[in-house]
Amino acid sequence: MADLTRERVDAAYAALMTGDKSKILEYWDENLRFEMPGHHQFSGWYVGLDDYLTKMGKLGEAHGGRFAATTKHVLILPEAGISIDVYELDGYRPGAAEGTISPYDRLQVQGVHMLRWENGRVVEGRSALFGDGVTRGNLWWSPVDDAGERTEL
Amino acid sequence: MADLTRERVDAAYAALMTGDKSKILEYWDENLRFEMPGHHQFSGWYVGLDDYLTKMGKLGEAHGGRFAATTKHVLILPEAGISIDVYELDGYRPGAAEGTISPYDRLQVQGVHMLRWENGRVVEGRSALFGDGVTRGNLWWSPVDDAGERTEL
Amino acid sequence: MADLTRERVDAAYAALMTGDKSKILEYWDENLRFEMPGHHQFSGWYVGLDDYLTKMGKLGEAHGGRFAATTKHVLILPEAGISIDVYELDGYRPGAAEGTISPYDRLQVQGVHMLRWENGRVVEGRSALFGDGVTRGNLWWSPVDDAGERTEL
Amino acid sequence: MADLTRERVDAAYAALMTGDKSKILEYWDENLRFEMPGHHQFSGWYVGLDDYLTKMGKLGEAHGGRFAATTKHVLILPEAGISIDVYELDGYRPGAAEGTISPYDRLQVQGVHMLRWENGRVVEGRSALFGDGVTRGNLWWSPVDDAGERTEL
Repeated sequence: MADLTRERVDAAYAALMTGDKSKILEYWDENLRFEMPGHHQFSGWYVGLDDYLTKMGKLGEAHGGRFAATTKHVLILPEAGISIDVYELDGYRPGAAEGTISPYDRLQVQGVHMLRWENGRVVEGRSALFGDGVTRGNLWWSPVDDAGERTEL
Repeated sequence: MADLTRERVDAAYAALMTGDKSKILEYWDENLRFEMPGHHQFSGWYVGLDDYLTKMGKLGEAHGGRFAATTKHVLILPEAGISIDVYELDGYRPGAAEGTISPYDRLQVQGVHMLRWENGRVVEGRSALFGDGVTRGNLWWSPVDDAGERTEL
Repeated sequence: MADLTRERVDAAYAALMTGDKSKILEYWDENLRFEMPGHHQFSGWYVGLDDYLTKMGKLGEAHGGRFAATTKHVLILPEAGISIDVYELDGYRPGAAEGTISPYDRLQVQGVHMLRWENGRVVEGRSALFGDGVTRGNLWWSPVDDAGERTEL
Repeated sequence: MADLTRERVDAAYAALMTGDKSKILEYWDENLRFEMPGHHQFSGWYVGLDDYLTKMGKLGEAHGGRFAATTKHVLILPEAGISIDVYELDGYRPGAAEGTISPYDRLQVQGVHMLRWENGRVVEGRSALFGDGVTRGNLWWSPVDDAGERTEL
């Protein structure tokens, strides 16, 4: 069984990005449960790796390519099987004006993922956002733009 | 052209309930715009009567039959082509325990519809809720239940 | 006893603006209950006219003078003792940049007041906002600005 | 300068609990900035240790004694001067019925504090909550109870 190290956390996220399921399964458990914060249409617990991967695909559609995610820090507590990474997001909804500060159109938040590891794989993930990030997430992931018009997801 | 009377407002809602499109078109304009309050997945402006009717069908799935809507008052201002009806909702999400008070599982709100009429038909509708009803609506229409588990809509 | 007319509704609001308690008491009951929507620090039911008038003073401090309230329509239903007025607000928090669209710094909402009248005086008032106005109100009345810094009320 | 260890994190929180300012200053910087998540009346950045300690006193009044806070895990990243502790809260508003599940009356959340340390002292703290905890916090810290009545803080 692989030890829980900061490098292994980095490698787990890198595997996700490849989209290669067999690679992903080296780090993420088939029965993964993952929770998105807030109460928007993508919030709540995803059950199973497939459910989670499907969601990630939809998230990509929601931002249409203008989205940056940066990992700032990775902390681990191997004896409890816990890692926490600190991240930062900056993304736009499709069609949003560059530089807008409306939280309906742009998401600028910092937060953490807390991952629980068993036998070298992530079995549970939860996310939390600092400041009023959860409200900003609720507005950004909502179908309404700053003017209240619907932009279907 | 039909006058704007309280009876006509009642008749417009009764027509909606029939599901009969030709009947509905006597009271609701083909190009109706209708706004649901809040920032949940059904919020924002619906564009066109068909879009609005489709939404109403989905709303029915969200409550699975345990939903009561009551009209308390109808007010009209014919010279401005405006009617406002005061309503009350009490509904459950499918699977929610009878009598629960969790706003994630049960919606108990009072509010108004403001309708704008032209040539005897509703061309625009907007809804607003009293108290913290909009937050309650955001929680209730969200996919997460009181425990954070997803109940797909 | 004074009849409930649209003119009397206008006069009730005009009396409020004078700040003259004896004038106000001609239209607003000593035991008035009035509800602000949302869940911010000024939300909920105010009990008694004095409580309500005190709140209105604090609301003034929150916007520091840049605040416009416009009544668009007044509807009445005398047989039920109900009036509903439709209004529009546009206000800034002190220090907010002119023209900003951040809902933390600027409030742009439309809504209604529903007043219940007895013996010619308002005994109960409730407010509701269209669109995502209640969320916007929650953000605007909060002590945090767009950057998360506190601006004490 | 004291090293950043998990024991030192525990000791910093223990010092806070004593209320002894000179003890507190061994672990918390005079110019501490600390951020409460959400957009309720206690949200946002507190500036300076005194401001933060005053806030903590008011938080105590808000729950009236029925409040449990439990630390689940402490993670550290000494080379970045960062600690993250995972905590759990269960608290009631004064007068709330034992066992209620209304988020307006009871707060049940899990989250993290991220602390930034310099020269052995905390100079910055931020909090984030998992799931829909921030919304629950907004409702709980609000002055309105489940019925919309105000319970002044």
